[in-house]
Amino acid sequence: MGPKIGFIGLGIMGIPMCKNLLKAGFALTVYNRTQSKMNEILEEGAKGVSTPKEVAISSDIVIIMVTDSPDVEDVVLGQNGIIDAVKKDSIVIDMSTISPKVTKSIAKQLNQKQAHMLDAPVSGGLWGAISGTLTIMVGGEEDIFNRAIPVFEAMGKNITLTGPSGMGQTTKLINQILVSNTMNAVAEALVFAAKAGANLDTTIEAVSGGAASSWQLSNLGTRAIKGDFSPGFMVKLQQKDLRLILEMARELNIPVPSTSLVHQLYSSLEAEGRGDEGTQSLVRIYEKLAGVEARSE
Amino acid sequence: MGPKIGFIGLGIMGIPMCKNLLKAGFALTVYNRTQSKMNEILEEGAKGVSTPKEVAISSDIVIIMVTDSPDVEDVVLGQNGIIDAVKKDSIVIDMSTISPKVTKSIAKQLNQKQAHMLDAPVSGGLWGAISGTLTIMVGGEEDIFNRAIPVFEAMGKNITLTGPSGMGQTTKLINQILVSNTMNAVAEALVFAAKAGANLDTTIEAVSGGAASSWQLSNLGTRAIKGDFSPGFMVKLQQKDLRLILEMARELNIPVPSTSLVHQLYSSLEAEGRGDEGTQSLVRIYEKLAGVEARSE
Repeated sequence: MGPKIGFIGLGIMGIPMCKNLLKAGFALTVYNRTQSKMNEILEEGAKGVSTPKEVAISSDIVIIMVTDSPDVEDVVLGQNGIIDAVKKDSIVIDMSTISPKVTKSIAKQLNQKQAHMLDAPVSGGLWGAISGTLTIMVGGEEDIFNRAIPVFEAMGKNITLTGPSGMGQTTKLINQILVSNTMNAVAEALVFAAKAGANLDTTIEAVSGGAASSWQLSNLGTRAIKGDFSPGFMVKLQQKDLRLILEMARELNIPVPSTSLVHQLYSSLEAEGRGDEGTQSLVRIYEKLAGVEARSE
Repeated sequence: MGPKIGFIGLGIMGIPMCKNLLKAGFALTVYNRTQSKMNEILEEGAKGVSTPKEVAISSDIVIIMVTDSPDVEDVVLGQNGIIDAVKKDSIVIDMSTISPKVTKSIAKQLNQKQAHMLDAPVSGGLWGAISGTLTIMVGGEEDIFNRAIPVFEAMGKNITLTGPSGMGQTTKLINQILVSNTMNAVAEALVFAAKAGANLDTTIEAVSGGAASSWQLSNLGTRAIKGDFSPGFMVKLQQKDLRLILEMARELNIPVPSTSLVHQLYSSLEAEGRGDEGTQSLVRIYEKLAGVEARSE
């Protein structure tokens, strides 16, 4: 009998994460703003409730997987929020990607109710969520982290305590600087290759084993040249993360010239209504600039 | 008894590559403009000569590993050049990184002498040259490529015929777009991390297993935060490659906004006299912009 788990936010990521928790044998109580999206998980044996507060009543550990800082504030601090009923010594794990500053403020308020918070954003997208191989970057106290490990292991690999409250979110933003700029490298390279008349499959094969290798090239580059722009991670969510990076860079008083450029390029995709496509769609922007399609033969 | 090999250009890369050829049992004739740099290889059993022409006389396969397009033109087409004595049906393998256009022109002139040329630039830097794990991207005819495979295998892994003459060089430039922009992603991310107060070892550990992973992060990021700026690949050589990319982009009539930005940032390092440092020195530029050092604790 492990801890009773609550899960708030059954989106593209939340649903496969819940399935992996059920598969691992955890008792699960779920809540989603749009109640109809809960059905898929209820059919697999989870209990459904109608407010975040009810999730807190039923759970030792409450996981949150929503979009942005205001959404997390709403489910924790809003009307019928977690904080109204959070159990003493229970853990709230926020796996959304939100502002480190907001994270620290929410953690403090939960602490006042003698509950704990971990910020534990993830990387790996839909494919990582389905396969249970998410990278999980955790901020918080070590003993609380240790209690949550079996829960994390049901959903991910590469689970790291990166520091105190907020440091999981900060690490995720660092992760997103890497992810977005590496995708940008892949997009510029593949479109250059296409315009130069290279065979794109052969090109990726030739360069993937060495100093040019990256997850973005092997996974998203390969999808893009097949014309597969379905989302592992959506452009509009990447843009939200890039805004958090630019916001934090301003607070830290440092320039992020490359991330800023990538954010601008992604804006063109959003302007074209491609916010729901995968981040590999960045290739489309370079294709437009170059007047050539980067597709395998 | 394999083919007799000639090797021209005993620089930072050439010397370990020659050692690996000798280790594989090939008879080796070497030439270097600065003759004293040949001693290390002569001591291991190679024969030294005083012109590229003499190398061609003694060899079935002549490998060139020099810096830039004019250097290759000089050893092949210049006074006492390879072309003066190149044997019928022998192979000239240019492993330098030079202009694809110049490559094709040199190949044509060698063909007129009934000799063959492969362009076979490498990635992996000094460390790849020493360990015999270079990535080799080859342009040329398939039957000529097949004849050269045992020679390539003495020096590298990931050996790919990417297309006709010039396509090895083109693929290398694509590789360098990836390498330089991914390094830039790493530099911007690590300095952001340092300013945000993250533990840099933990950060790299946390993000290296997932969508942010790259060779540049695992290898060069790790070196940079230890303050190790010794060259696997020198800034000044990266800048030469970036100039070749910008030149080819102009010919192809496409923009490369990110590579152009990275080229500009590397210019600052050259201006500081850091051209002989490794490409991970790009971190220093971001450190300056941010007013913080990105070092592990």
